[in-house]
Amino acid sequence: MAVYTEVSDDELAAFIAEYDIGTAVSCKGIAEGVENSNYLLLTEGGPYILTLYEKRVDARDLPFFLGLIEHLAARGVPCPVPVHGRDGAVLRTLCQRPAAITSFLAGVWPRRPRPGHCAELGEALARMHLAGLDYEPERANALSVDSWRPLFERCRAGADDVVPGLSAEVSASLDRIETDWPRDLPRGVIHADLFPDNVFFEREKLSGLIDFYFACNDALVYDLAVCLNAWCFEPDLSFNVTKARLMIGRYRAVRRCSEAEIAALPRLAEGAALRFLLTRLYDWINQVDGALVKPKDPREYLHKLRFHRGVSGPGAYGIEP
Amino acid sequence: MAVYTEVSDDELAAFIAEYDIGTAVSCKGIAEGVENSNYLLLTEGGPYILTLYEKRVDARDLPFFLGLIEHLAARGVPCPVPVHGRDGAVLRTLCQRPAAITSFLAGVWPRRPRPGHCAELGEALARMHLAGLDYEPERANALSVDSWRPLFERCRAGADDVVPGLSAEVSASLDRIETDWPRDLPRGVIHADLFPDNVFFEREKLSGLIDFYFACNDALVYDLAVCLNAWCFEPDLSFNVTKARLMIGRYRAVRRCSEAEIAALPRLAEGAALRFLLTRLYDWINQVDGALVKPKDPREYLHKLRFHRGVSGPGAYGIEP
Repeated sequence: MAVYTEVSDDELAAFIAEYDIGTAVSCKGIAEGVENSNYLLLTEGGPYILTLYEKRVDARDLPFFLGLIEHLAARGVPCPVPVHGRDGAVLRTLCQRPAAITSFLAGVWPRRPRPGHCAELGEALARMHLAGLDYEPERANALSVDSWRPLFERCRAGADDVVPGLSAEVSASLDRIETDWPRDLPRGVIHADLFPDNVFFEREKLSGLIDFYFACNDALVYDLAVCLNAWCFEPDLSFNVTKARLMIGRYRAVRRCSEAEIAALPRLAEGAALRFLLTRLYDWINQVDGALVKPKDPREYLHKLRFHRGVSGPGAYGIEP
Repeated sequence: MAVYTEVSDDELAAFIAEYDIGTAVSCKGIAEGVENSNYLLLTEGGPYILTLYEKRVDARDLPFFLGLIEHLAARGVPCPVPVHGRDGAVLRTLCQRPAAITSFLAGVWPRRPRPGHCAELGEALARMHLAGLDYEPERANALSVDSWRPLFERCRAGADDVVPGLSAEVSASLDRIETDWPRDLPRGVIHADLFPDNVFFEREKLSGLIDFYFACNDALVYDLAVCLNAWCFEPDLSFNVTKARLMIGRYRAVRRCSEAEIAALPRLAEGAALRFLLTRLYDWINQVDGALVKPKDPREYLHKLRFHRGVSGPGAYGIEP
């Protein structure tokens, strides 16, 4: 939870004057999101989200992200639509940072996802993948399989202090994943970070996907593997196969998957677990005194990695042979 | 900035069903306020604020606070009005915490207060003081002059590590303040924490006072002394006498002050500076690892205390003799 940048009332008024959305009635920093500063902006025209992009997002990627959500929204994917200023631009500068206003999405994110949420998510993910197929700009996945070893080398020294034996375990996992990684699966734009706090629901119905700031081109089912990790484990870290079955089933009902994609799921899920284990481990070891955001416990993803490493095949996710 | 308690979608829906405000469209934690968890709740009926009272607020005081803001709002003071549930109650339980919904106030708090803001604040403070005169419940000021020495004793040992010589300086200040403290000034309900982030403006016009969770009975002009500290120093800690003159002038135009009240201002302002110096010093020395809220630098208030200690009389605040 974070607001890194304080926007003064004068700066805000001048910024909003560039848009046709009326004047600001209120602007409150939102205690969600860890990469950027987000404000819930109420104007005479209604609610909007004002985002200031902080240094963890590369400003050169912003046209890719904003173009993508506009592209997806135009194809019916429920996501925040960038608001164009009077000059047509969606990206401008506020408090020396790139900033944009997007439409406001109704709904709340599920603190305790239920099977029905996972089903809805699977369908929305597939629709997003299809809608993104004709989005032309490309962005490489900076946190793809090839990035994991260099990342591991940067936190290897501290790993065993977090969990004894972690360094050797990650090293073995990396060896296996790098060897086996399926590299010829269908690719497209993936969200790459579709955790429950990035998905809104109104009652049981999915109402929005947000936070596309890790979006990139990669294997489409890798996105599903990220979601298996993020949605289908219970708080006690047991795996809920009903949730997985519903998520994958609804995904496949919208987007047909090849046999190779399904067969690759266990290794992709192990890789996705390793990706979050490594970034959390890095943030854990490199904690900044006085940081606004508490680093997340990397051990959660070690448990998940072990689960995926241990499954005998995609049947473990409730998929019928 | 903090949201201490995560409210699940189910708990939220059940809670809101107790009110006649429609169903929730959205509920976002606000990154403001350090004592409680605040959510901006959008319902079909409009925006509201949902507050969960965390352990720093004594639940036994909540009827005093909520009764006070309702009393003040009924007398035209712009402050959030508690919303009554269908059963008539304004206080109920959510996530094992006392919780209330209040109306939403338009406006933003001034990040860089200007003289015009200070003038508006002075007038609103006086109106609040007059409106509170017939509020019958009483609450002692837990952070009054009599509490400062015990508080100092609890952080005395670490004081010189923060600023060399701080212990002796605070001790001398305490001696003088306890001896000279004016104890027979007109009393009433004071806000006691009216910092800029608790005051909203729409353009130049004051639109709301919030966060009455330090409100108590004490000398009315002590509240003005708190505001002199909170509003009239520049970022470089120089004192802006124009702001003080406007604040006090507009206050006195609404509420007549006795000569004794005006004469007491320098000592009250020194006391108010000491109060915030001590609570910040305590929080600074007793930092909690992983706390969501960064403690504020106590040295800011040491500078302010020295300023007030050094003034020759109320003329230093722009008051004509």
